[in-house]
Amino acid sequence: MKIIGIDPGSQITGSGIIEFANGKISLIEYDIIKLSSRDPMSIRLKKIYDFILKKISKYKPDEFAIETAFYGKNVQSTMKLGQVRGAAIIAAMNKKLNIEEYSPREVKKYVTGSGAASKQQVLTIVKNILSIRVSPKFFDASDALAIAICHYFNLTSTGRKFGITTKEKSSWKSFVDKHPEKILR
Amino acid sequence: MKIIGIDPGSQITGSGIIEFANGKISLIEYDIIKLSSRDPMSIRLKKIYDFILKKISKYKPDEFAIETAFYGKNVQSTMKLGQVRGAAIIAAMNKKLNIEEYSPREVKKYVTGSGAASKQQVLTIVKNILSIRVSPKFFDASDALAIAICHYFNLTSTGRKFGITTKEKSSWKSFVDKHPEKILR
Repeated sequence: MKIIGIDPGSQITGSGIIEFANGKISLIEYDIIKLSSRDPMSIRLKKIYDFILKKISKYKPDEFAIETAFYGKNVQSTMKLGQVRGAAIIAAMNKKLNIEEYSPREVKKYVTGSGAASKQQVLTIVKNILSIRVSPKFFDASDALAIAICHYFNLTSTGRKFGITTKEKSSWKSFVDKHPEKILR
Repeated sequence: MKIIGIDPGSQITGSGIIEFANGKISLIEYDIIKLSSRDPMSIRLKKIYDFILKKISKYKPDEFAIETAFYGKNVQSTMKLGQVRGAAIIAAMNKKLNIEEYSPREVKKYVTGSGAASKQQVLTIVKNILSIRVSPKFFDASDALAIAICHYFNLTSTGRKFGITTKEKSSWKSFVDKHPEKILR
């Protein structure tokens, strides 16, 4: 089973694709698209749409996971992010993929065990889970991989919706219990 | 020349298509799509995308105009509206249409002469310009027509970008001057 994770952003959008096969979770690809602020928003949205469509066409994931809105900064950035999310979701819908959404906090909690983990901590654990050495150049790519991993943990858990107490079976904690060789010593 | 105007909304999205030919502006079609709040947002976005795509395929407009964000209410509604706008813009981009955006205030100012006009005032003038008797059932449809009319006034003016002082030539005021028969007495 393949999962594509998308970390949407109007400046950089990250994508990460992972595969789960034979009891093993592995990296397929990660990438980012950098948007020019000189481009009108409509051009940026179309570029993001095409970027995601291409990834889906090439890697044929079975599942699509995207980070939900990060509310707060200001209305203008919220509006921009909403538009990017709309474009990304339409790409997935046009490819008939099931869409699952996770808040940044859910992603962090699933992947690291703590909803308040830093981007660096998320990156470290993502590298560890996927056995990759090179750091993804941008956090947007490692965040996208974290979103895909989060969805994997959620899919393989008994409950569908997030709640760390009911999901502990498939959380990072239980993953480590099952894969002690992944722990850096 | 045909123009499609879109009034985006996560509950109701309106579309309005007008034509300008032989010195006459006329109505082609107006419609709305009502979204169920029980549907997940991804389904709603896809329905809006398909709705707009279908309108463009059927009526083949040359230009696409959409209302910009209405900021203010709250971040959650701003995020939702952003997603709807993203889906709508991707529909237009996928049909290779040029996209023009207008703020609610610009639309009102172009169409009625006042940026603070009520929805009812906009509706009255839209009906007047397009010589239609029946009220569009929802303001979302008349607003969509107003957006298309606003774009028409903008396109036919000397300057590209809005500024009522430079655009007076093609404002409602100048339209009335040229078409005194449109004034209800």
